[in-house]
Formats: sequence, C-alpha cells, structure tokens
Amino acid sequence: MLTTKLLFSFAVLVLQVYFASAIDDSHAWGYECINSRCEKIQITPANKETILDLRVCRLYCYDDIGTLWPKPTRNVTFLKSVTGVNPNYIKFTTESFKNNEFFEVAKERFIAMQKNKVKNYTLGGLDLNIAITAENDDMELNYDVYEGYSITIISNTNAIEVMISSKNFFGARHALETLSQVIVYDELNTKLVVLAAANIQDEPKFKHRGISMDTSRNFYPVNIIKKTIDGLAMAKLNSFHWHITDSQAFPMEVKSHPDFTKYGAYSKSKIYTADDIKDVVKFAKSRGVRVIPELDAPAHIGEGWQKKLDLTTCVNYMPYLDYCWQPPCGHMNPIKDELYDVLEDIYREMLESFTPPVFHMGGDEIFFSCWNTSKPLQDWMLNKNLTLDHDGFLELWGYYQTNALKRMDKVGGSKLPIMLWTSELTEEPFASKFLDKDRYVIQIWTTGDDPKIQRVLNSGYKVIISNYDAFYLDCGFGSWAYDGLIWCSPYNEWQKVYDNDLNGMGGERIDQILGGSATIWSESIDEHNLDSKIWPRASALAERLWTNPKEHWRNAEPRFLMHQMYLKSSGGLASEVLQPEWCVHNEGLCQL
Amino acid sequence: MLTTKLLFSFAVLVLQVYFASAIDDSHAWGYECINSRCEKIQITPANKETILDLRVCRLYCYDDIGTLWPKPTRNVTFLKSVTGVNPNYIKFTTESFKNNEFFEVAKERFIAMQKNKVKNYTLGGLDLNIAITAENDDMELNYDVYEGYSITIISNTNAIEVMISSKNFFGARHALETLSQVIVYDELNTKLVVLAAANIQDEPKFKHRGISMDTSRNFYPVNIIKKTIDGLAMAKLNSFHWHITDSQAFPMEVKSHPDFTKYGAYSKSKIYTADDIKDVVKFAKSRGVRVIPELDAPAHIGEGWQKKLDLTTCVNYMPYLDYCWQPPCGHMNPIKDELYDVLEDIYREMLESFTPPVFHMGGDEIFFSCWNTSKPLQDWMLNKNLTLDHDGFLELWGYYQTNALKRMDKVGGSKLPIMLWTSELTEEPFASKFLDKDRYVIQIWTTGDDPKIQRVLNSGYKVIISNYDAFYLDCGFGSWAYDGLIWCSPYNEWQKVYDNDLNGMGGERIDQILGGSATIWSESIDEHNLDSKIWPRASALAERLWTNPKEHWRNAEPRFLMHQMYLKSSGGLASEVLQPEWCVHNEGLCQL
Repeated sequence: MLTTKLLFSFAVLVLQVYFASAIDDSHAWGYECINSRCEKIQITPANKETILDLRVCRLYCYDDIGTLWPKPTRNVTFLKSVTGVNPNYIKFTTESFKNNEFFEVAKERFIAMQKNKVKNYTLGGLDLNIAITAENDDMELNYDVYEGYSITIISNTNAIEVMISSKNFFGARHALETLSQVIVYDELNTKLVVLAAANIQDEPKFKHRGISMDTSRNFYPVNIIKKTIDGLAMAKLNSFHWHITDSQAFPMEVKSHPDFTKYGAYSKSKIYTADDIKDVVKFAKSRGVRVIPELDAPAHIGEGWQKKLDLTTCVNYMPYLDYCWQPPCGHMNPIKDELYDVLEDIYREMLESFTPPVFHMGGDEIFFSCWNTSKPLQDWMLNKNLTLDHDGFLELWGYYQTNALKRMDKVGGSKLPIMLWTSELTEEPFASKFLDKDRYVIQIWTTGDDPKIQRVLNSGYKVIISNYDAFYLDCGFGSWAYDGLIWCSPYNEWQKVYDNDLNGMGGERIDQILGGSATIWSESIDEHNLDSKIWPRASALAERLWTNPKEHWRNAEPRFLMHQMYLKSSGGLASEVLQPEWCVHNEGLCQL
Repeated sequence: MLTTKLLFSFAVLVLQVYFASAIDDSHAWGYECINSRCEKIQITPANKETILDLRVCRLYCYDDIGTLWPKPTRNVTFLKSVTGVNPNYIKFTTESFKNNEFFEVAKERFIAMQKNKVKNYTLGGLDLNIAITAENDDMELNYDVYEGYSITIISNTNAIEVMISSKNFFGARHALETLSQVIVYDELNTKLVVLAAANIQDEPKFKHRGISMDTSRNFYPVNIIKKTIDGLAMAKLNSFHWHITDSQAFPMEVKSHPDFTKYGAYSKSKIYTADDIKDVVKFAKSRGVRVIPELDAPAHIGEGWQKKLDLTTCVNYMPYLDYCWQPPCGHMNPIKDELYDVLEDIYREMLESFTPPVFHMGGDEIFFSCWNTSKPLQDWMLNKNLTLDHDGFLELWGYYQTNALKRMDKVGGSKLPIMLWTSELTEEPFASKFLDKDRYVIQIWTTGDDPKIQRVLNSGYKVIISNYDAFYLDCGFGSWAYDGLIWCSPYNEWQKVYDNDLNGMGGERIDQILGGSATIWSESIDEHNLDSKIWPRASALAERLWTNPKEHWRNAEPRFLMHQMYLKSSGGLASEVLQPEWCVHNEGLCQL
C-alpha cells in the first residue's frame, strides 16, 4: 500500500511541472489555501504563479478530502497538489473484465465525462493509465454484493498511474466514480488536472441506496430515466425502484395483454416497451444501479383495466375520497381466480424484461370500502367466515398477497426478496401470519419518529427507509385537488435529508435497515422539473447511506456545494442551486 | 362587426371540409363535448368521424372561450368548430407597421410558433391571411399605452381571414398572441387547426404586469432571460423588472468604471455588456415587454465596489446580521460627493442601454447600523444637526435619495417615473418630505393584509403589488444560511397567486394600483430551475392582472391546465406540471 511518505516524494516534481502556464489577464480572482480554507484573493503579478483555481484549491485544501461525495468511509491519504491530465490519453488495463460489456460502457462513460469537463483546453498534461484488478466479474446486483474498492494514484514524469482493486465490477465502477471526482478542470490555467497522488479505501454503510420513482401519474421518456440513473451513479447510489404503474396510467407494455397499454397509457408514445425496459436495466447495471420494478397491487389500479373490470372493484367510483386517496379509484378483486392468471402473465413478462434482483409488490393504501362495494366479494367472504370489518378485510388482503406471491414463485421469482410498503398488513398479528420475514423487505414511508418503524423491525423484517418527513422529494408544493399545500408539506430541504437519523430509527436493530430510498411521486413532477426535485437532494441521501456520517450537515456543506456544481457540469443535471454563487466563492461566510 | 349569426353561416361548410380524414387505429381515446365538458370517450368505428382531439375539444366546448389565457375582458363570440390551417401559408398585410423592425420580429415569431406546433403534418388546410390596422406605430411602452385590441376570424372556402385592429403595435401584438392560442395541433387528425370563426375584443385591467428578476445572486445567461421574456409575451405580461445588481455580484457593464464588473462579476463570462442589454431590450419590445432596470441603492451593494470602498460603509462586515440581512454587507456612503458622480455615470450608461420607460432605484433593507459604523459619517450628521437615531438616519436616507434623483434627472431621466421598494422611507412623514407622489411609484413587498399598503396608497402613491405571501415565486424552499425553511415560506401555489385580492388591497384607491410583479429572488434559483419557478405561476399572475377575474381559481383550472401545456409545447418552457396527466384528460374529476 502506498504510504504518505512515498506520496510526498512526488510532490515537488509535480508542482514544478504543473505551474508552468500563466493566467490570462482577464481573471481577477483566484484562491489560496489558508488554514484549511480556500480564500478568495485578488490575482496580482506577485501571486500569479501560485494562485489556485477554485476547484483545484477545494480538491485538496483540507485535512480530509475536499470534493469527494459521498465521503469515503475508510482510509484517505493524498498529496496536496495536482498534475495535468491529457484527456485524449486515458487508457485502461484489466484482466478482470475481458468480455464484460458493462465494463466497456463504464469505461467509455468515464472517458467521455473527463473530456466533457474541458472547456478550453491548453495542450499538455500526462497520460492517465488505469489498471483494474477485481476478484470476479459477477453481474448480479443483489443485497449480497460487496461494493467496496481501493484506488491509488501516483504521478511520475511520464504518466499518471491509477491502480484500482475491488471484489467485482460494482466496486471497480465506484472507484472510477471516485477517480472522476478528483479530476477537475482548472479554469485559470485551462487544464484538466488530477490529484497528483492519493490512496483511498472505501465501502458503503448501507446496501440499498436510491430513489423510488413513479412513472404513472406523469410519464417520463426513457432518455430522462437514463439521465436520472446516470446521476444516481455519480453519487454512488445503487437502486432505481421503478413504480411503473398506478391507477392514473398503465404505461408498461404487457405483450400477453396489450389492452393494458392500449387503454391505460396516456398516449401511444407514452409506453415503456419490454425493449425499453431491457435497455434501461442494462444501462443501469453498467452504472452500478439495480432496477427494482414495482407492480403496485391490489390497490392503485384503474386505467388499463378497462377490459378486465370484472377482476376489479370500485374503478372510477366517485366521490373518490370514499374509496381511495386519489382519482381514479380501483382495486383488484382478490376473490377472482382469473385475476391471478393475469398477474402471473404480468409477473412472467416483468421477470423477463427487468431480470430483477428484488421485486416490489406495492401493497399501499388499500381501502376496505372499495372492496366492500362488491356484493359477490362480500358473499365470498361471509362464505369463508370472514367478517366484513377491519380484521376480515385484512384476512382477504393476506389471501390476495399469498396467492399473488404463489404466482410470482411459479414463474421463476421464488428466490427474489419481495418488497412491500408499510400498511396495516405489515402490522402484527397479520404481518407474521402472511409475510415471511426472511422473504419480505418492508419499505417504510411514515414519519421518522413513528413507533411503527420499531414495530416493523421488531417483527424481524429487513427495511428500506423512506420516511416522508425527510426522504420524500415531492413534498412541499401546491396540492393538485384543492388549494393549499400537499399533505406532505413543508419542503424537505437538503439539510433535513442529510441529517435523517437512521441510527436513531434502527436502534439496536440498525442491521435490519438495508438502506433508504427517496421518493419521486409524480403528481406534480414530470420531465421538465424532475432534475431540480431530485438533485442535489438525492446526493444528500447518498452520503447519509454510503457514509452514514456522525457529523451535522454544516460540516458537509462546502463539499456539497462543490458536488452540486459537479452534478451540473459533469452530469448535465439541472440540479437545484442552494446558495448565491458568492457563497461558493466565499467558503463558510454564508453560514449563520 | 361580425355577428354570431354570420359566424354560424360558415359552420356547416367548415365542418364538412375539416372532418374528411380518418383517425389512425393506434389511438384509443378521443373527446366529445357533452354538456360543456370534454368527456374522454373510446374511439369506435361509429364515432370515428366526429370524435375530437383533446385540444380541439377544449378550444370551443364552453360558453366562454376554452383555451385563451388570460381570459379576455370584453366581447368574445366564436363558432364551435375549427378549420385546418396550412402552416406554410401564413401571410400578413398591414399599412400600419411598414418600416417597423419590431413588427417584423413579431410576425416571424408568430409564424415560427405555428410551425413549431406541428408534429406530424398531414398536407392540407387553408391559407391564413392576417390583416392588421393600427392607429399609430409608437413604440414607447410607458404607462399611458393602451394595449387593447380586437380580432375577427372568418373562414371561407379559400382561406382563413383574420382582421386585427388596435391603437398601436402593442395591442396588435397581443392580438397575435390571442390568435396563436386559438390555433392548435390536432393530434388525432395530424392537422393544424384554428377556430373557424370568432370575434374577440379585449383590453387589460392593469397597466403593469410582470416579473421582477434578480440576476445578481445567481447569474442567468442572456438566452435564458430572452426565453423568460418570450414566456411573458405568451401570457400578455408586459414588464420585465431587472434587478441587475446586488451585494453578491455586479454583472452589469459600466464602461466608465470597468472595475465594477472586473471585480464584481462572478466571472468574465458572467457579465451583461451594454450590447447584451440593448439586445434584450429590443427583444423584449418586439414582444410587448418593457424592461425596467433597477440599480438597488443605497444598500445591497458590495462586490464590484472593491476600488471604491471609500464611497461605502460596512462592506464585508461580520457577523453580517448586525449590518445587513445577507452577506456580503455594504451600503453606499451618502455623505460622499464623489458617490453621486459615480451614480451619474452609471445612470447615464443605463439610460443609454436600457432606454427605460420607468427606472427602479431600489431602496430596500437599509441598515442604519451599517451607516453608523462610519465615524466621518456620524460627524457629518452631527454637524448637520441630525441625530444618530431612526429619524436622523431617515433624513440621511432622504438626503441620499434627493441627490441621487438629481443626478438621474441631470443625465436625461427627468421624465421617468421612479420606482422604489416599500421601506421606512415610504412611510410618513418621510415619504411626503422626500418622495414626490407624482414621480415615485412604490413596489409593495409586504403581506397582502398589511395596513402598510393602505398607508402608502393614502399618501397618494401609485403602486405595484408584490406581496410576498402570494407573488414571491422564490418562497417555500430551504434556507441557504441555516437549516429549516426560508423566511418567506410556505410555497405560493398557483391558486394563491391567482386569488391574490388586488381589489381588497386597493379598496377605494384601486386606481392607484398600476399592477403587480412576481419576484424571482435568485438565492436558490438559477438558469436550471428558473422555468419551473416562474411557470405556470406567472401566468396565474397574468390573468389576475389582465382580467382581474371575480371568479375563484376553480373556474379557471381546466383552462389553466391547457395553458400550462401550451407554455411547454409552444414556448419550450419547462413549466411546472400541476396535476397527473389523468386530470387533464378527465376534466374536473380531480377537484375535491
């Protein structure tokens, strides 16, 4: 392993090589690293040779590393200097991923990202040689995957040598992401530069880190979904939970039942075909992101079921609040055997197109009043000695869940962890009766201080945290059915996302928390405002889940501001700006 | 004037011409106008010849007009049918604007907008001939301009004839905006169509309708400003109040003092040159939008004044809350005669580049504690028998305002109305002492129910309403200096903007309300999230100010949803979506 001493032996040389060029006279300000803070300084003839570009100064002017996001969890050693990189000479060497198509994509993406950073290139800089060693090239991104990595950077007179080692593709890919974050464009000297020497060892604290995105209430084109997944990769988020259907629209192609999209898609151009889905899944995997499909059921259905109304209850009933939270209402009718045949068809096709490591079966917001509109259903329940009340309908729901799962298992999903939203079914005694704790993972969407969290953990389930008072990125805006604000207001600012206390929620059962997911419910979000709702707040989530820092958001803020700029400049993401640019230039002076 | 009877005589013919084409089998849904509501209906062989595209149905399926936004204030008569338009044959005839370069721009913009609507054009449709008559071609967009217009559309067998009459360019331009709104793309029949016959007479209720945009805290490229102004034009908003400088950055070129941008711009690429400004002003004028520049003073200065620190007080003082609301602090020092020389230079250049019809002199958030840091200033005040307290500093402020205005008048601004933000200076007895009520217009930024509004009106001033609890479009997000939300939370949803009660604020003095302006303070806004902050809420403001409707937002909602789609499809604006698309397809069913 590279020692700090060895790292420093390269420093003098590198500094000499780097500071050869002069700064264009039109620049008025530069930065100096003074007492571990980048201070804005007027450029003068006297300081012209030593003054730094903002990004360069922020890269290393700290005791811990200045621009990495999320913050590494293990060793970080680095030299406080940079060396120029020639973006046209980036080479990879690896024996580990010889015929791995995903690696080819990751490689090309890395090279393109570096080239995109360069605005006005002054010739020069060294070759960047990246050597990667991995133990295996397994491509299953399940919850057993180890995503850790180590990376070493050494500059010599001829080249910059980067050595990456990891257990698998996913760790190696994260290492490339880290490497990309220590390569910055120096605007003062019009050069691409990299930390001259560094050694970083890193691994995530939580296994599930991502977003839950609803593509039913408003539709997102495939390229927008890909752009979002690209962003996830930049923050080392690894899960894209795709809430692909809901009562308002059914945009997912089901070849065996073409009427779902024919009647349920908003238009013929607003459909995710099986090929689209395969394309997204592949795109995501090459970026270290698992795609978890959700078929929300037995509630949250309506559009698309027009030709199967006999398998449903209360579709389009009004006034809607009597039967569901949002128009149009609709539930599956669990007593219909044909319903499970249809589910089997859908599951079969979803397993084929998504090849998922985890499957989400939904299970939120069941209204017993919706089921209770059906006389045959009532008769069936009474016939089975089920009461037409809370407990009876929960038994019916359990019956549905059991039968739906059987069909999932029948078509090849028997090894998959199954996710469900918290509901009355995930509460005892029903949870233990119907939901195997070794099979089901519960996604918690209550408030962070709700005792329900501890109850679900005590029942033994593994959980994903999506408490709406921190991780719901859609909160805080106008309601769409009345005036005033949406139920989940106010807005969850990035500080709240960052400080969301998973340790407090987990307590002694913290190990059952697989991670967290930030939601994008799309009643008032579409492709036009998506980026600014997700970014940079999903990155605040990313550090919570990768690093689980003990420190308050204030410690992270200067680094977060740089990361937010990186999301824009390198990711092309229309990330929400957090402060006047003045605060970026004047580190720490905007905090109260 | 065209009568309803005459209009209807064209109807049968038009309907026959229009409904010749068949609908592609991949479309599942269309619309029928049933009881003045567009109902979503499955397309069948039986209804294929008569079923309507959503946009077409919404265009005329009402007693009042379905897609115009803002709603016209006078007569509207129209036929419930459409006729096809050939987007390649749009011709203009006018004697009124023969050598008017602004009209040429407006004309080309109109034609381009219609062509842009077409996605997949089926050949056909009639020529669109537009004849315009105006009384004059004056191009001063001051508060005396009458913006009313009338427009008549008649379809005959050969062409669609449109006749526009107005007092001037600005009325005629609004008429083109109205015409554009009744031309929609019919996706079912792949045709561009226009209302077959209509007569509309229209004029605005308020003279000042627009936005106030801060380009200092974060910088916006010129093309983004232009895109925003283009959006204003689409909603018949007529004012772009440009808060161009502030303490955080000075991005406005001042040729006689190049140090303002050299040290005060965020970078050399983040400067508005005089040519940029002239370009924006011309662009805006051709879209019926006046540009009102603001040089905020005597507070809200800092960056850019580095070489003139002797003309300032408290620049960069910390802790900032002792001297100003936001870092960096800084006020002009009113006792310095050289300050007024500098102001004169700035005003001279601003009058030349902006050629403004109104000038905003700022005047918000003066901290007497900032002035009080200067011993020479204290001495000067004591020497003039001014006390170092509230009243004394207000006298000093009045002294500043009087002297600054003299310089404005000296360089040619003596005829211009002068705007100021509400402050202690706009309160009696200081207001009447220092601010001529026939010269000053006061922009009110308190809450809508603050008695201050009535006090300012009682002092006799004309006012612009920008109450922050409805018209501040930047409210409701995370603070940037601490955790928790910004001071002006919660978010002002469109319903609140729409229902903002100007009549209630004005009372008997409603005639003194010139209009309103929605603010874009840019601490947490930049080019990436600008569109979704402004749109469609600025359009809600537009109808409040153009139409001043008596009706509640609920009446406007279906029309507003169509307008929000129009902003996206025809304006390319990333307008915030308000509801699931399902609600657009199922009119009225989402309202509680």
